Amino acid sequence: MALQQRTGELVIGTRGRGLVDITRPLREWLAEQGISTGLLTIWCQHTSASLIVQENASPEVRTDLETFLARLVPDGGRERYRHHEEGEDDMPAHIRAVLTSVQLSIPVLDGSLALGTWQAVYLYEHRLRAHRRRLLLHLLGDG
Amino acid sequence: MALQQRTGELVIGTRGRGLVDITRPLREWLAEQGISTGLLTIWCQHTSASLIVQENASPEVRTDLETFLARLVPDGGRERYRHHEEGEDDMPAHIRAVLTSVQLSIPVLDGSLALGTWQAVYLYEHRLRAHRRRLLLHLLGDG
Amino acid sequence: MALQQRTGELVIGTRGRGLVDITRPLREWLAEQGISTGLLTIWCQHTSASLIVQENASPEVRTDLETFLARLVPDGGRERYRHHEEGEDDMPAHIRAVLTSVQLSIPVLDGSLALGTWQAVYLYEHRLRAHRRRLLLHLLGDG
Repeated sequence: MALQQRTGELVIGTRGRGLVDITRPLREWLAEQGISTGLLTIWCQHTSASLIVQENASPEVRTDLETFLARLVPDGGRERYRHHEEGEDDMPAHIRAVLTSVQLSIPVLDGSLALGTWQAVYLYEHRLRAHRRRLLLHLLGDG
Repeated sequence: MALQQRTGELVIGTRGRGLVDITRPLREWLAEQGISTGLLTIWCQHTSASLIVQENASPEVRTDLETFLARLVPDGGRERYRHHEEGEDDMPAHIRAVLTSVQLSIPVLDGSLALGTWQAVYLYEHRLRAHRRRLLLHLLGDG
Repeated sequence: MALQQRTGELVIGTRGRGLVDITRPLREWLAEQGISTGLLTIWCQHTSASLIVQENASPEVRTDLETFLARLVPDGGRERYRHHEEGEDDMPAHIRAVLTSVQLSIPVLDGSLALGTWQAVYLYEHRLRAHRRRLLLHLLGDG
């Protein structure tokens, strides 16, 4: 069959700094597209939130990851960052986004995201306060 | 319309360590391809330069990011790195490239890169001296 | 010619923590697909192994990279990580995977991976013990 493409978007409400599992909304969007084999690209349109893939089993993994990043990229004001006017968590959020990623491209097999057994896709909110984050979706595949 | 692909390259002259905004040359190349909806992949063919997405508003964000990386991955010679013959900035440049990324795939909507309001695409030169860096472009989309 | 897609997988045996050069098996798989121009996406189905692009010339680069990551993300038990039941190297492996990447999309030109002169693609095993790691491959291109 001929290759086709679809585009869409997900708007995700975050509750402040931390991980939001977006695997299910991604799977739901994908299920509506009628694509069996293909490639799904997710693009996070922000510079203080990002995308990661991590274990979906133990919540402690997410806690430890957050603890690690909070130590590696400490929040701080003028004494630490030139760019501090938007809050002590703003510049660290930009750095965290650079150290992770704003894009993922995931193969689609048998109409489903080809994640490993323990993999989940997370939106990582790096700001302390809740935000609405927009993710663009691009799907290529057989129609 | 049938899907098509285009390939191209950008050669970017850097001025030594720091960020070069490549959003405009990417947009210009894209505008010549006649693709309305699709996916643009950028591949940096180097191991001491990389690609990031970051805020395009405040130059201080770029300064703080560079300060962070310079502390996280210090330049150094034999006392710090086994691989030191190519300069005290060479091994750190390799590590910085690993911590960021050499590839980005950005959705194209309405003939334009679907970046967020504050997003810009940067080539990050990690070596101290100026270099010419080659970026390969792959575009998939409707023609 | 019309665009086509192919999918496949590579199963890579690792010898414990460190880098496995997968450039050659990728090239061999690609050579069997009959695609001249396109885009190859590699997806690592794990949360404690990842993909990087790095210099293929000096083994010391890989040693220095490993030394850097081992210091940045120290192994440790209960005193350091809440998630420690699966071994002192498990949580660090998750963090290392987040700081690198589980996905790469590489342009294909003239039937070959369009890597730079010094670039090689590596699977990074972050656990101390040997594992079998599964990589999914998605290839788009002209047939």
